[in-house]
Amino acid sequence: MSELTHIGPDGHARMVDIGAKLAAERVAVARGQISMSAETRALALNRETKKGDPIAIAELAGIMAAKKTADLIPLCHPLPLTNVEVRITPAEPDALEATATVRTTGKTGVEMEALTAVSAACLTLYDMLKAVDKAMVISGIELLSKTGGKSGDYHKETP
Amino acid sequence: MSELTHIGPDGHARMVDIGAKLAAERVAVARGQISMSAETRALALNRETKKGDPIAIAELAGIMAAKKTADLIPLCHPLPLTNVEVRITPAEPDALEATATVRTTGKTGVEMEALTAVSAACLTLYDMLKAVDKAMVISGIELLSKTGGKSGDYHKETP
Amino acid sequence: MSELTHIGPDGHARMVDIGAKLAAERVAVARGQISMSAETRALALNRETKKGDPIAIAELAGIMAAKKTADLIPLCHPLPLTNVEVRITPAEPDALEATATVRTTGKTGVEMEALTAVSAACLTLYDMLKAVDKAMVISGIELLSKTGGKSGDYHKETP
Amino acid sequence: MSELTHIGPDGHARMVDIGAKLAAERVAVARGQISMSAETRALALNRETKKGDPIAIAELAGIMAAKKTADLIPLCHPLPLTNVEVRITPAEPDALEATATVRTTGKTGVEMEALTAVSAACLTLYDMLKAVDKAMVISGIELLSKTGGKSGDYHKETP
Amino acid sequence: MSELTHIGPDGHARMVDIGAKLAAERVAVARGQISMSAETRALALNRETKKGDPIAIAELAGIMAAKKTADLIPLCHPLPLTNVEVRITPAEPDALEATATVRTTGKTGVEMEALTAVSAACLTLYDMLKAVDKAMVISGIELLSKTGGKSGDYHKETP
Amino acid sequence: MSELTHIGPDGHARMVDIGAKLAAERVAVARGQISMSAETRALALNRETKKGDPIAIAELAGIMAAKKTADLIPLCHPLPLTNVEVRITPAEPDALEATATVRTTGKTGVEMEALTAVSAACLTLYDMLKAVDKAMVISGIELLSKTGGKSGDYHKETP
Repeated sequence: MSELTHIGPDGHARMVDIGAKLAAERVAVARGQISMSAETRALALNRETKKGDPIAIAELAGIMAAKKTADLIPLCHPLPLTNVEVRITPAEPDALEATATVRTTGKTGVEMEALTAVSAACLTLYDMLKAVDKAMVISGIELLSKTGGKSGDYHKETP
Repeated sequence: MSELTHIGPDGHARMVDIGAKLAAERVAVARGQISMSAETRALALNRETKKGDPIAIAELAGIMAAKKTADLIPLCHPLPLTNVEVRITPAEPDALEATATVRTTGKTGVEMEALTAVSAACLTLYDMLKAVDKAMVISGIELLSKTGGKSGDYHKETP
Repeated sequence: MSELTHIGPDGHARMVDIGAKLAAERVAVARGQISMSAETRALALNRETKKGDPIAIAELAGIMAAKKTADLIPLCHPLPLTNVEVRITPAEPDALEATATVRTTGKTGVEMEALTAVSAACLTLYDMLKAVDKAMVISGIELLSKTGGKSGDYHKETP
Repeated sequence: MSELTHIGPDGHARMVDIGAKLAAERVAVARGQISMSAETRALALNRETKKGDPIAIAELAGIMAAKKTADLIPLCHPLPLTNVEVRITPAEPDALEATATVRTTGKTGVEMEALTAVSAACLTLYDMLKAVDKAMVISGIELLSKTGGKSGDYHKETP
Repeated sequence: MSELTHIGPDGHARMVDIGAKLAAERVAVARGQISMSAETRALALNRETKKGDPIAIAELAGIMAAKKTADLIPLCHPLPLTNVEVRITPAEPDALEATATVRTTGKTGVEMEALTAVSAACLTLYDMLKAVDKAMVISGIELLSKTGGKSGDYHKETP
Repeated sequence: MSELTHIGPDGHARMVDIGAKLAAERVAVARGQISMSAETRALALNRETKKGDPIAIAELAGIMAAKKTADLIPLCHPLPLTNVEVRITPAEPDALEATATVRTTGKTGVEMEALTAVSAACLTLYDMLKAVDKAMVISGIELLSKTGGKSGDYHKETP
């Protein structure tokens, strides 16, 4: 038998049964970053034009990706998200950091939605900036916290 | 004016015009990894059962995500992929590494498809294993190489 | 700070937090029309054959589009629709009018779902009829009413 | 007037109004099979390799298809599924049988989700095995049972 | 090593490499049927109303599903379909038969698209008619023929 | 028999056969507008903040919707778009105008993609601004021109 909830006692994959869980307010926060050359980062941050802003487009892509999580991750439950926010901010050295906060009133948590939003935001930054820098690296995608529901809150320990 | 091809001379976002480019054989290879505790990795690798295997499911999720790239990344062109392969292998210390190879006969490259496949494979591993380990971190998502087409090949320099 | 709810106090786009709102019965009704030549309209209305009917296909396309609203409109919440009806009727002079009624038991309204259904129905009529008339114009797409929920009902004033 | 609930008293198609129905625990079970040559079946069952297993991939495809039901079946309501399981087992003579169990806490049943999961699982088996056998036939797709909700349970009579 | 093209020499699933294949005109024809009570069939065929016709809706659902094949079947290639037709006709005893013809100018065949169109058409008939008959059975889904491309034509032998 | 190409000689809906048409460079341009109160328009145009800009978000939504056209419009062919641009500009009196240009190298035109992009851009403006103005009206959605391919160019006559 397996400790992995997505795999049943008989070894088959399954979308776990959450029917008996209560609908509760649940929040998940995830983070990730994309590192690049100093010149690329300056270009991304230098948003003199109000339109075609790589950062705003990546934030929007993250929000939209959160809504597609159950379509991307095979065993994820479809959930009615009540709130999604994605923020991209400068990080050191020469990186941009994405943070996503996702909320639901549902029977299971939204960790995967927050992680998917962060991943899509970083991928979109890569796409927007790759004409000038193909060596960018996406890293540090992790769950910061998860609260709500009966299984207990989680807060990542900071070293 | 911008050096970013997804942003036009007037500062507006656009899906770049690739109409004049030739359809050519193009390949992109990307890589990424997810680090976890030694116990979690052992659990993932210990595939005594033939079904419900987290690694096989994550590989499949990566392949399927490659096909959704234009839906996830706002300014990506839809492309007829001719081949997608995703492999997950053990990496040190205590990580699993995903490598994706994507091919097209098309007018633009498939870097984003390879990076998206790797991201989705890592996210799916997170989902399959999160019941036992929420502290896993996805990192090192990068383009290894891109060949084909007129704009020149790219191979990541190894340090 | 902004009066636009989809834009936060910090100027970033967001999917508004509706977690604290109550799930309530909500209805929205929208309308729009497509004008065409008299000959084109006669062709559309002349449904002697029971199959391949442009009007029935457009109504169905409107219903199906309502279900895709959160995928099309970036900051829309995904909602469990409980009822969708789309009706296309003749309108003067030389037009077809689409009316959509959408219901949910949810935490926010379905105005965008009704407007999207009407838009898709009109676009589908354009597609079905464009072989004979490319000069058709879609117009008058508006919200007629919205009821349910705490923020108050809305009924368009008729001039 | 019609006895078909998806068609209103005026003869128009509609997504039926389920707003007044209560959210209840609902379960549907469906079954189907794909028949093939003895050699093809042996190949499918002979899963010496732990990866690339046609049966595991088809089970996963069935689970993922259940989540797309409202996108495939025009008048189906989108529903928050709480559990999906698909099992493929050998059947006589020379066939593989797929069984899907789908659960929701919702206002209408999940018969179509279970039937769609079974269909997608059988289609995926066809795709995985068609290089060696194009004469396979999918048959016997039927609803075994449906329970929960006010309209009464259904259990298929066995002959 | 495997005879299954979707599984590589190393046992991993893959979307087969079709890059070296020529784009050619390819056609696939598939068939399937749904059996029901005589009363249900009469109701489906009795299309006195021109709208809300179960048969026309199922034909349309089949056409639309053909376009979603690569999204439903994990290892299918996305293909630019050039033609899709689905026909539903009465079959004996007490059944409706769906036939789908799909064409592409592409590097691989459209068997899965034709089979998916037939499956979705039958599932939609089930959905439209299930209010009066839950015991319907979908069966006989098979590939009738496949032509075009270098791998040779296929025509199902009739007994 | 019908003059409507989406409906065959037998009265059934079909996705028209374009297999014999040549792949050619094709362009379509469409336009539409949304009228609103002077205050609402000022709010939309007053983009002091660089992020969360309703106009930039609506342009992006239009680009992304063009890629979903074949999913929204039942009988549209899926096409590999090579370029999409959407521009929103002030129009008189008190309106915002959206113009979309879509290009493909394909076997059929992209009129529906351009019209869908304009519709989605206007719907997104409605969504972004509806908190302050529910009486906005979308109108004047029309095809301005279509060039490329053998069937002849089309340019809307201006009155």
